[in-house]
Amino acid sequence: LNEITVLNKYNFNHKVSCRCLLNLLHLLFRMKVFGVLVVTIQLALSHAALDWLDAVIIDNYNAENIAEAQFQGNQISEVSLHEEPLPPPPDVKDAAKYARYIVHYSSWGSLSHISWQPFTTALPIARAYSISDGPIGKGNGVPYFLMTIRDNEMQDIVKDPRASLTCSLAQSNFCRDKAYDPEDPRCSQVILTGKFAFIPNNTAEWKIAENAMYSRHPIMKTWPKSHDWQFAKLFIRRILLVNYFGGNKYPSVESYFKADPVVYSEENPFNNVNFS
Amino acid sequence: LNEITVLNKYNFNHKVSCRCLLNLLHLLFRMKVFGVLVVTIQLALSHAALDWLDAVIIDNYNAENIAEAQFQGNQISEVSLHEEPLPPPPDVKDAAKYARYIVHYSSWGSLSHISWQPFTTALPIARAYSISDGPIGKGNGVPYFLMTIRDNEMQDIVKDPRASLTCSLAQSNFCRDKAYDPEDPRCSQVILTGKFAFIPNNTAEWKIAENAMYSRHPIMKTWPKSHDWQFAKLFIRRILLVNYFGGNKYPSVESYFKADPVVYSEENPFNNVNFS
Repeated sequence: LNEITVLNKYNFNHKVSCRCLLNLLHLLFRMKVFGVLVVTIQLALSHAALDWLDAVIIDNYNAENIAEAQFQGNQISEVSLHEEPLPPPPDVKDAAKYARYIVHYSSWGSLSHISWQPFTTALPIARAYSISDGPIGKGNGVPYFLMTIRDNEMQDIVKDPRASLTCSLAQSNFCRDKAYDPEDPRCSQVILTGKFAFIPNNTAEWKIAENAMYSRHPIMKTWPKSHDWQFAKLFIRRILLVNYFGGNKYPSVESYFKADPVVYSEENPFNNVNFS
Repeated sequence: LNEITVLNKYNFNHKVSCRCLLNLLHLLFRMKVFGVLVVTIQLALSHAALDWLDAVIIDNYNAENIAEAQFQGNQISEVSLHEEPLPPPPDVKDAAKYARYIVHYSSWGSLSHISWQPFTTALPIARAYSISDGPIGKGNGVPYFLMTIRDNEMQDIVKDPRASLTCSLAQSNFCRDKAYDPEDPRCSQVILTGKFAFIPNNTAEWKIAENAMYSRHPIMKTWPKSHDWQFAKLFIRRILLVNYFGGNKYPSVESYFKADPVVYSEENPFNNVNFS
């Protein structure tokens, strides 16, 4: 028990003696703050892991710049909550564009984080939140949120920003209309994994986030100010797309942000019919 | 940097010197297997946390027994993928019954776990999967799944079974019909947090899971055997319900399993109209 088995990338078994760590754990256990300390150590390790990921990530992009460039004015298109059928999706082989399509046409998603609440300490947990990457036809690919720090979940995510956003076409009528089971890979889903961050007030991106959220969720403009609503976003590190048989696809973050978010044209009858 | 700040339950700050841990991390970093070792240590800690949770959990229940008792025959009701409007929900104040209602009428949910894949090591991630707790009107409250170990996500969850299942009424027409924004607390959601487990073949619960999944997702019966489909379930430790203004609700696991899953009666016209 005073050895930890380590599986490295090549599946060799190493054994690393670490009486040190176990002594520490034993000490913590005797201090009767075991749960809280496990939390703290995991937080320390996870931050280390995030910094390490930052260093190795290949897709070096600046989401702010992209968002800035694609932001076109401040017009608010009031979109009804009643969702019309989606415009037809892009070619399943164009993974980056397909991922953009799902994110853009999703009005909400499941945001995963690590819980630091009693009874769920260090357990992964997802909660459904409204999202928007911009007004219909003008999305920039960045998932924005409007959050209140009153939620326990938000308090946890501030401490530990590791997060994923999952959006499935099962949320729309797409899969039902096609008779795809929600677990059928053609009932497409995208999972954006990275880091959650609040957006500082009155910055350029704050205006973009405000426009994105209010245009797609106009009711939010009326939500009580006392709840301290704050705009937030997800920094994307990795994109997982499931949209056909044959396994996961991983479009690069760069190709995702470069992909044309417009999946319909002037000629496409869906253009002005469904989202006006 | 060689101190870790510990926030205990009463928000006192303690500082615990742990050169020991940092020395270990430094050693691991020099061994250039940092990422993999962070994974391993986190796994070790998370298993410790799970065991600790097992010990303190108050709601001591036996899901198998409950499932067994509520299992009534093996009749398969073919349910169309096209979802009709839900029967009216229970009283928002009855948190346990309301949680059962959401789980029972959801055909899918977002299953969160910890990813151990490259670029997302130690990051939380959710993927949408079909679920069922039993045929309509005969749910036992246990979320069952049909999974293939071919998915990277399933391989990770076998190594690290920490998991949550999130189901929102935004998945149905409920929120759209009521014009509730997906983030409006009345657009109810339930988050079941616990431990994911595959169900051994040909056990009593395996038959319950098979009946649950095939009755609600009949197409699954035709899925290619070569994918090694396996039935699975979530052991529930904590239930988080959002179904009205005023913050999260936490019905006990015991009250959840005791709640009557039938939200409609013979007199309720929804009984046989929508789910036959």
